[in-house]
Amino acid sequence: MTTALAAKIAKEYGTPALVIDMDRVERNIARVQAICDKAGVANRPHIKTHKSPYLAQLQIKAGAKGITCQKLGEAEIMADAGIDDILISYNLIGDEKMARLGALLAATTITVAADNPVVIAGLPAAAKASGRPLPVVIECDTGRKRAGVETPGEAIALAQQIAASPGLTFAGFLMYPTETGWPDAQRFYDEALAGVRALGLEPAIVSTGGSPNLKNVGQLKGATEHRPGTYIYNDRMQVAASVADWDDCALHVYSTVVSRAAPERGILDAGSKTLTSDPGGSLDGFGLILEHPEARIARFAEEHGFLDLARSNTRPNVGDVVRIVPNHVCVVVNMSDEVVMVRGDEIIGLLPVAARGKLR
Amino acid sequence: MTTALAAKIAKEYGTPALVIDMDRVERNIARVQAICDKAGVANRPHIKTHKSPYLAQLQIKAGAKGITCQKLGEAEIMADAGIDDILISYNLIGDEKMARLGALLAATTITVAADNPVVIAGLPAAAKASGRPLPVVIECDTGRKRAGVETPGEAIALAQQIAASPGLTFAGFLMYPTETGWPDAQRFYDEALAGVRALGLEPAIVSTGGSPNLKNVGQLKGATEHRPGTYIYNDRMQVAASVADWDDCALHVYSTVVSRAAPERGILDAGSKTLTSDPGGSLDGFGLILEHPEARIARFAEEHGFLDLARSNTRPNVGDVVRIVPNHVCVVVNMSDEVVMVRGDEIIGLLPVAARGKLR
Repeated sequence: MTTALAAKIAKEYGTPALVIDMDRVERNIARVQAICDKAGVANRPHIKTHKSPYLAQLQIKAGAKGITCQKLGEAEIMADAGIDDILISYNLIGDEKMARLGALLAATTITVAADNPVVIAGLPAAAKASGRPLPVVIECDTGRKRAGVETPGEAIALAQQIAASPGLTFAGFLMYPTETGWPDAQRFYDEALAGVRALGLEPAIVSTGGSPNLKNVGQLKGATEHRPGTYIYNDRMQVAASVADWDDCALHVYSTVVSRAAPERGILDAGSKTLTSDPGGSLDGFGLILEHPEARIARFAEEHGFLDLARSNTRPNVGDVVRIVPNHVCVVVNMSDEVVMVRGDEIIGLLPVAARGKLR
Repeated sequence: MTTALAAKIAKEYGTPALVIDMDRVERNIARVQAICDKAGVANRPHIKTHKSPYLAQLQIKAGAKGITCQKLGEAEIMADAGIDDILISYNLIGDEKMARLGALLAATTITVAADNPVVIAGLPAAAKASGRPLPVVIECDTGRKRAGVETPGEAIALAQQIAASPGLTFAGFLMYPTETGWPDAQRFYDEALAGVRALGLEPAIVSTGGSPNLKNVGQLKGATEHRPGTYIYNDRMQVAASVADWDDCALHVYSTVVSRAAPERGILDAGSKTLTSDPGGSLDGFGLILEHPEARIARFAEEHGFLDLARSNTRPNVGDVVRIVPNHVCVVVNMSDEVVMVRGDEIIGLLPVAARGKLR
C-alpha cells in the first residue's frame, strides 16, 4: 500500500526521502515550550536533531531562550543565520577550534562547557581573540558516565580555575541526568552550589538536558533551563521512553520496496547509509514501518534494508512506498542534505539540513 | 601520545578528521588490479567506498574497466566527471528515477541490474527517453539473501522478459557470493547460462563482487569481472576477513580525547555521527585505536565515543589526538564532506567526498 502523499513524494523526489510534517513539528515545538513554561525553566532546544536555522528560529519564536549546539561547526551555521544565544555543550580543545571560537564569540553570545582543567586552560585564547569575556559552564556527570566531572568537589575546583582565568567567567552548571537520576543530580548540584557560593560565585545557568527527560523538567530545584533536542521530530526511542506517541513523530523515512525475492523477505532502498545502524537503545529492528508494523527491518547493507516479513500478515509488493519511523531520528537527519517539508498531504518543498555533517 | 602528523592535522583542520594516506591508496589500487589481472577478470571497482571521481579515475588509470555505483545519484556525479562505463548494481524503480536514468544513458555507457519483473517493466521508459538501448544484468542471489533471484529458473525467465522488452538488452548476470559460496554460485551460473543460451542469449557481463572475496576472484568459471569496493581504504572488517593487514588501512579517523572523567574511561570527539554505529559484523567495539589497541570504543552518543580503558595499560590524556581504524570504512566516509589527503607525514590537502549522501 502506498499512500497518496507517498506516491507524490516518490514522483517528485524519488526515495529514500526524509519527510517532515510541519503541522506535527509546530505542535511538538508548542507542546514542549508549554512544558518548560509550566515548569518555570527556560527552553534551550538542542539543534543537533534538525540542524536547520529555519527550525531553530521557529523554536525561538515560540519562546525558546536560545539554542544548544554540540559542535562548533553547528554553532557557526546558526550564528551566521542570526541566532544570538548559543550554548556549545561540549569540551572544545585545540588552537584551530580556539581561533574559530574567538571569531564566533566576537560576533554573538556564546557559552561553552568544560569538564576538565586542560579544556579550561585552552579557552582564554578564544576570549582574548574575541576581545570579550567567555562564559563557561561546568559539565557535571549525573549518572550517564559520558562527559562531566564525577564529584561536586571537582566541579568547585573547576569553577575556581575558571574564575581565575583571564577572559573567562564562571557561568554555572550543565547536567544531563538519567531519567531516574534526578534526586542524585539534586544532591550533586546542592553541594556544588554551596561550594561555589563559598568562593563568591553564583551560577547564572543551571541547565538540564534531554527529550526523554521532558517528564522530569522542573524537578531540579535551582535549574534555570532545559535542553531538549529530539522532541521536534520524535522517534521510536521517544515513544519507548513514553514522552511521545506515534502521532507525535514528525519525520518519516519514505522508502521503496525494491525486491521481494522470497515470500518471507524483502529489500527496502533505505540501508545503513539512510537509516543508520543506530540500535536506539535496545529496540527490536531498525525502524517501525507504519504500513506493516509487524515487518522487521532486521539488518542492513549500505543501501539495502533487509525486511523480515515472517510475522507480517500483510506484505508489501515491489514498488510500494512505505513510511518508516526511525529508531533515532537525530542520526538519520544527519545523513541527508535536505528534508522534504509537507503539511498534511501537501508538499511544501525542500528544507536544507544546513549544519549536516559538521564533524568539527 | 600524539604523532607529529596528528598534531599537524589537528592544527590545520581540527578533529575529528578523516585522513587518507595516498601511498597506501595507490598501493591498494595496484595490488587489487594485479589480483584481477592475474585471475583474468576485469576490475570494476565499487565507488561507494570513496565516492570520489578523482579516486575513481586513479582506479581506471591503473587498469579498471569501469566502475560500479549503488545509487543513481552516485552515477550522476561520476558521469559528470567524465567516467563512461558505469554499472548501477541496484533495482531502480519509479518515474523520477527513470527520467534521470534516461538522461544518464543518453550521456554515457550505463548498465543496470534487476531481480524482478516489476523493475524490468519500468526500465524501457528510461531507454526510450535516452534513445539508446539499456543493457540489464540479472542479479542472482548466491547465498547472501539480499537482492537477487533465488533460482536459475527465475533468472532465465527474467532474461526472456528483458530480451522481449523494447529498448532493453540482456547483458548478463550479477552475483555477490558469500566467501564460502562460490561452488554454489558456479552451479547457479552454469544452469542459468544453459537456460539463456537455449533462448539464443549470451551474457556479455558475468560480475562477481566484494573485497572480502578478493581471495576468491577468478574461481567462478565464466566470470568476466569483479566489483571490489572497500579495498581502496580497507578497515577492521577487511583485516578480520584476512584480505588486508593493518598497514593496508589507508583511512584513519583522527580524534581528540576530550574528557577523562575517571581512570578507566574517556571520551573521544568522534561519536556515532562520525564513526557510525556499524558493528562491522561481530567486531568488538567500534574501531581500533592504533596508539591504544587495548582501549575499547564501547559505545556512542552522537558526538561522544565512550572509551573503556579498563584493559589498557597506556591511557591517553585529554588533548591527545589518536588514530582510529574504523569497523566499516564505507559508511564512515559517507559521514564527511571531505577527507584530508596525506602522503607519509605530509599533508596534501582536502579531497571532496563528491557523491556523499546520495540517498537517491
